[in-house]
Amino acid sequence: MQGLLGVLGGMGPLATVDFFKKLVEETQAQRDQDHIPVIVHSLPAIPCRSTAIMLEGESPLPLLLEGLVRLKQSNVECIVVPCNTAHFWYGELCKASKVPILHIVDAVRDELERRGARPARLGLMCTESTLATRIYQDRMAGEGIEFFANRPDEREQLVTAAIDLVKQGKPREAGHLAEQAVRLLLDRGVETPVLACTELPVALEAIGSPLIEHCIDASRALARAAVAWSMERRTAVALGSQDLRSRGRCLSE
Amino acid sequence: MQGLLGVLGGMGPLATVDFFKKLVEETQAQRDQDHIPVIVHSLPAIPCRSTAIMLEGESPLPLLLEGLVRLKQSNVECIVVPCNTAHFWYGELCKASKVPILHIVDAVRDELERRGARPARLGLMCTESTLATRIYQDRMAGEGIEFFANRPDEREQLVTAAIDLVKQGKPREAGHLAEQAVRLLLDRGVETPVLACTELPVALEAIGSPLIEHCIDASRALARAAVAWSMERRTAVALGSQDLRSRGRCLSE
Repeated sequence: MQGLLGVLGGMGPLATVDFFKKLVEETQAQRDQDHIPVIVHSLPAIPCRSTAIMLEGESPLPLLLEGLVRLKQSNVECIVVPCNTAHFWYGELCKASKVPILHIVDAVRDELERRGARPARLGLMCTESTLATRIYQDRMAGEGIEFFANRPDEREQLVTAAIDLVKQGKPREAGHLAEQAVRLLLDRGVETPVLACTELPVALEAIGSPLIEHCIDASRALARAAVAWSMERRTAVALGSQDLRSRGRCLSE
Repeated sequence: MQGLLGVLGGMGPLATVDFFKKLVEETQAQRDQDHIPVIVHSLPAIPCRSTAIMLEGESPLPLLLEGLVRLKQSNVECIVVPCNTAHFWYGELCKASKVPILHIVDAVRDELERRGARPARLGLMCTESTLATRIYQDRMAGEGIEFFANRPDEREQLVTAAIDLVKQGKPREAGHLAEQAVRLLLDRGVETPVLACTELPVALEAIGSPLIEHCIDASRALARAAVAWSMERRTAVALGSQDLRSRGRCLSE
């Protein structure tokens, strides 16, 4: 199927729902048939990414790889992983994948460009493991951007707590915590906080927080990149060209 | 994978997102790993079900059957179709399917039982084609229930219009129309309107309508049935029993 997108999800399930919703929202459509075809694997049994990284817990990689194989069997032509922390295994996933995998940090960079924003200080709101493994800092190295996170106590009591609450099905409670964390970053002169954990936009949207407008939602950025990929792919096939297959960022890793 | 659920979706995409969200909401979970495993096929190119039924347009059946095959290849053990109108082809889907398919009307009946409700008049808010093909009336025949729909002009200007607006990505505009249609049914003494098109709860929830509490949301009912199926299946496997595989409603069709 032309432009069939695979979503390797379930990390967590509500964040995957949110990402799927954004795929629909980011598509210009007047009717069902205008939308992009998607297969979503929501396999929440994948071991906790943060525990694997920070506490040497069970690795999620084997189940992530199984998911990739199943998506490929379903003939997807491109894969996205709406979980920032899981991008720690991006290189290994790419090596095993027969189709390109879009990188969430590239999508955030594209979103900055789209906004014409060249912030000196980018806020990083994410899991402790995304921060510690420098998923954003390393992929955006050399761009003159200083990354700025909340203080450790704020991260524990606001950011991590909000993430956990979303995973427990309490997005509104999470929203109030996440909003405080965003406000603290803005007060300290951070121009653009990046919601670099896919649970955080779920939290802020649950309370209709106006602060989300000041942020870059990595999940929405990835959805936008994925819709653009699928639309371009359909156009390319319509024009008889196959070369978009090689345009995934994976090979440049 | 134990209890792996397949969702044959995309009819329309936002309704599939809403159904997926309800799968998550209807699961008791404290962490990602407590959730059920799901594969969602959102293939919006499936021809319009209503056009096929009412105007002898292209049949959606071939693409629905393709979706079934792909879901089976992904090793799902049970399938749901979060589109009421598509249940017109339920018999043919069941004949072709190697795994049980839960019927959305059975889920609504279960929801009535769960509430202890024995309404004499059930409101039916749905597409013209769901109404005309008697998907609900025939499956619930002999239960002493009188079905009651909006007047034809209301169906056109409120119900069908709301469904189309959701498909166009305008759920809030849709919500105000759907709310009027619900209120008209309640005013006429209909005890329980059934939101028997999966776009309608999307509309009412988009405006936070309190009237949704008076309705049965067929999409949420199906989600609840699917979560129960998956949880029972996991328990049965844990107990070494395989007999739940045969418990789908499909074979009793």
